[in-house]
Amino acid sequence: MNIPDFPKFDFDASRVIIYGGGGLSKMIIETVRVLGCYQIVGIVDDSIPKGSEVIGSPVLGGAEVLPDLIRDGVRTAVNSVGGIGDYTVRLNVFKSLAEAGFVCPPIVHPSAHIDPSARLMDGVLVLAQSYVSGNAVVRSGTLINNSVVISHDCVLGSCTNFSPGAKIAGDVIVGDYTQVGMNATVNIGVKIGSKCLIGNGATIKKDVPSGTRVYAGTIWPAYKPKNKKK
Amino acid sequence: MNIPDFPKFDFDASRVIIYGGGGLSKMIIETVRVLGCYQIVGIVDDSIPKGSEVIGSPVLGGAEVLPDLIRDGVRTAVNSVGGIGDYTVRLNVFKSLAEAGFVCPPIVHPSAHIDPSARLMDGVLVLAQSYVSGNAVVRSGTLINNSVVISHDCVLGSCTNFSPGAKIAGDVIVGDYTQVGMNATVNIGVKIGSKCLIGNGATIKKDVPSGTRVYAGTIWPAYKPKNKKK
Amino acid sequence: MNIPDFPKFDFDASRVIIYGGGGLSKMIIETVRVLGCYQIVGIVDDSIPKGSEVIGSPVLGGAEVLPDLIRDGVRTAVNSVGGIGDYTVRLNVFKSLAEAGFVCPPIVHPSAHIDPSARLMDGVLVLAQSYVSGNAVVRSGTLINNSVVISHDCVLGSCTNFSPGAKIAGDVIVGDYTQVGMNATVNIGVKIGSKCLIGNGATIKKDVPSGTRVYAGTIWPAYKPKNKKK
Repeated sequence: MNIPDFPKFDFDASRVIIYGGGGLSKMIIETVRVLGCYQIVGIVDDSIPKGSEVIGSPVLGGAEVLPDLIRDGVRTAVNSVGGIGDYTVRLNVFKSLAEAGFVCPPIVHPSAHIDPSARLMDGVLVLAQSYVSGNAVVRSGTLINNSVVISHDCVLGSCTNFSPGAKIAGDVIVGDYTQVGMNATVNIGVKIGSKCLIGNGATIKKDVPSGTRVYAGTIWPAYKPKNKKK
Repeated sequence: MNIPDFPKFDFDASRVIIYGGGGLSKMIIETVRVLGCYQIVGIVDDSIPKGSEVIGSPVLGGAEVLPDLIRDGVRTAVNSVGGIGDYTVRLNVFKSLAEAGFVCPPIVHPSAHIDPSARLMDGVLVLAQSYVSGNAVVRSGTLINNSVVISHDCVLGSCTNFSPGAKIAGDVIVGDYTQVGMNATVNIGVKIGSKCLIGNGATIKKDVPSGTRVYAGTIWPAYKPKNKKK
Repeated sequence: MNIPDFPKFDFDASRVIIYGGGGLSKMIIETVRVLGCYQIVGIVDDSIPKGSEVIGSPVLGGAEVLPDLIRDGVRTAVNSVGGIGDYTVRLNVFKSLAEAGFVCPPIVHPSAHIDPSARLMDGVLVLAQSYVSGNAVVRSGTLINNSVVISHDCVLGSCTNFSPGAKIAGDVIVGDYTQVGMNATVNIGVKIGSKCLIGNGATIKKDVPSGTRVYAGTIWPAYKPKNKKK
């Protein structure tokens, strides 16, 4: 239907593709659907057969279909590849999307809450029940999974990944590509370098140098605490 | 008042009893009230005196009143007995309710979020601030307490119990009657057997055989991690 | 504008000051704004220069401006000083406000949920994504940060502090001025004394005497658990 006088835009920003059809993508497909403001054209995945479905959304093919989608007027994409354990997998999807001419808006589940003074850059995902607090900055491509808390004034690098339940206190700085496990905690004012892997349930008390792996369930730095009456 | 033409149903599905009047039941009574679509007829409890109240809802008596309630046209029940530490307590309440002719709809607090592609079977409770993700299956009678995350593709057995803040990664399978403690984490793809007890804050990294007890605050399997620069 | 017949009240309860302009105050300013029912007159802070701004709200001066504000018809205040590690800092702000003639309503973020049978006293703050359950009592001045769960029948003392993700099971009693760290868990029925410091990720299994410090990532009481098949 033609709408008289309404301007013709270069593309329809409501039509979106999801890049990635694995487990995580199911949470992200549901998030995009429940937002109500997007129509999912389909899933792009390099290993799922074209014509199959992921929870009801059709698989369109692999990266080779991106130029066709652009020609068809689709320019909006969501990267649903998590890259847990290897951030380059998620990063490379962003590279493919950018080269093909797509843009990636931040996506926030309606049950999450983002304070208006926080800043989410492009490609950021914030999943159900999470919270990003006042004055925090979340750089491009970062994935904030369920029930995560990012407190006031935090600065999170590009393509960082926060697993469900991670709690980051105020004034924490996290370098690019660092991944923080489920229910891990990071103390106020701590600096975590880039490309760190922080395991599930880890307790981070002090700064963590770039490239460090902190194992699940451990305390950083290691110490022998003696609980006592004060 | 008689409503012309509107059909007469066998029973009024909006009238509900709560079985159990202990501590947990207060959270569940509040959940049922805030949903707005149920009228609580009263509490059935075998040890609280008939005629007393639980946060304003009357105690009707013990299991002996179930047949009277059925005759009175009540058929909908919510099992608010937790059975932490002994799953048979919760299971036996379901048996009494089924024998008397009641049905138990799933109950979801309005601040929780269930992805539409997830499946909750009968008798499942999901309390405030929790999340059940895409394609997950939650079998009958399971209790998902506050701020729990059940990720994509999980399959949770019958009458399992997830305490506040438990975080279950994607593709996890949990056997019947297993209980997972507060803020415990379970890694992606892990299989937990039936009748396990996982303590508060436990970090589950690998499969757990049926009948295992993992103590609070411990890592499974036990290991001596050495945090280091990669 | 004059409103005919509408009574003249002693003060306008919708005009509010925020006492404290540090990091935590950004989360609290955002919480007060999103509630929609308050107008923030400004920030009172003893160390930030008058005339500067905190995420867009003006700093009015230090404690010396409180009498002027009272004279101007402002009587409602929110204490956004956390006092982590030293509860007297937060307590003294309440003393200044009370002496000057202010009152401090409880403030609850709209994404938090408080069961109607719970009781929040004055000066209590409940931040985003948290939950306070049936029949719980939260005494004056307590700060419940993000994604905290306070279960049924808990009694929390005055000016206690619960950091993000702390999970408190049912029937727990916490004494005045105690602070509980991020993602710490407290077992059902435990009594924690006053002026305790419970570290991040701590696992509290049994009663904790007043004045005890439990270090981050530790189990209380200390034990050497042997996980095993039952």
